[in-house]
Amino acid sequence: MGQTSNTKNRLIKAAAELMSIRGYNAVGVKEICEWAGVNKGSFYYFFPSKRDLALAVLDAQWEATRGELLDPAFARDLPPLERFQRLFQMVVASQRDTGEQVRGCFFGNLALELSAQDEIIRHKLQSIFQGWCEYFERVLVEAVTAGDLPEIDPAAAAQALLAYFEGMALLAKVNNDFGSVEQLAQRAIHAVIVAASPPVQTNG
Amino acid sequence: MGQTSNTKNRLIKAAAELMSIRGYNAVGVKEICEWAGVNKGSFYYFFPSKRDLALAVLDAQWEATRGELLDPAFARDLPPLERFQRLFQMVVASQRDTGEQVRGCFFGNLALELSAQDEIIRHKLQSIFQGWCEYFERVLVEAVTAGDLPEIDPAAAAQALLAYFEGMALLAKVNNDFGSVEQLAQRAIHAVIVAASPPVQTNG
Repeated sequence: MGQTSNTKNRLIKAAAELMSIRGYNAVGVKEICEWAGVNKGSFYYFFPSKRDLALAVLDAQWEATRGELLDPAFARDLPPLERFQRLFQMVVASQRDTGEQVRGCFFGNLALELSAQDEIIRHKLQSIFQGWCEYFERVLVEAVTAGDLPEIDPAAAAQALLAYFEGMALLAKVNNDFGSVEQLAQRAIHAVIVAASPPVQTNG
Repeated sequence: MGQTSNTKNRLIKAAAELMSIRGYNAVGVKEICEWAGVNKGSFYYFFPSKRDLALAVLDAQWEATRGELLDPAFARDLPPLERFQRLFQMVVASQRDTGEQVRGCFFGNLALELSAQDEIIRHKLQSIFQGWCEYFERVLVEAVTAGDLPEIDPAAAAQALLAYFEGMALLAKVNNDFGSVEQLAQRAIHAVIVAASPPVQTNG
């Protein structure tokens, strides 16, 4: 049993590592098996297809993101809005730790690569992003309650913040430089507050 | 000569169509040739590799984006900030026109799929996003000059707006629904204004 779960976990870890750099379609089952030191027979024992492995990787990455990023960033030892600053700092630090090439957001990368080609993976990613929004929303509600934010629509604000956050990860990846968007990230709270308020009518 | 450029253009159009749905790695040269009705020999006459074709597609898509989207959206018949609203409306309308599945931003899709795996394509995309920022920046400078915006850092504001814009396209793609982010898009101008202003110090 320990050996079984070890083999399965090695496949998940290998796929997570390879896909975080090159995405889904550029990474083959053979390469994942070699990286994990697992033979192809064992692969198909655990995962009927590469898609099934990708779904397991997404679950594992989401669990890690919650446990290692979102839960600690949003711990209640700081006032609500400062927790967003901490989140951005943690993301920037983790991207710096990966070495030469900015990898961006694992979920965002697969979302753009696969959403138009695989409905099952798209739904998985949609529910992960929904979970992400719920984290943001809880903190925003707390900030409103604490009087740190004006009355806003927390669901819309959470979506706006997530969009901004994913967009910055995209620019960081294409610029291969997280530093260039770090300052924008620091200012994201403001963007959220304003983006969530009703649109101003300009006079044409 | 006409025939030559016709064949080359057919390959570019076929690749643009296929890659806008399924990205780069999932689309093969054979499929592009079949779609274009061109034999493989002709393909390699025009393009030494799939990457070379992708670079030509990116040039063509960027030219089309400027001519069909950015130039008309930012035409000076509207006050500067209202041109951004027009841009978002045009993007939403064009995404609605493509049929069942939201395709997102062609450049953003390839940026996340390929930036960590191909430096030449990453540089091409980086220069396209830089060009996009320059469009935004010119309009923002005009808005400041017209007194429609407070003094901002136009380069930072343009980057923030582009990040927000790409992030919304990402959420639209993963939700397969542009409507859900349309309202956020309408509010983007506000986000930009505030995101570009200096960060507020919160009291910890």
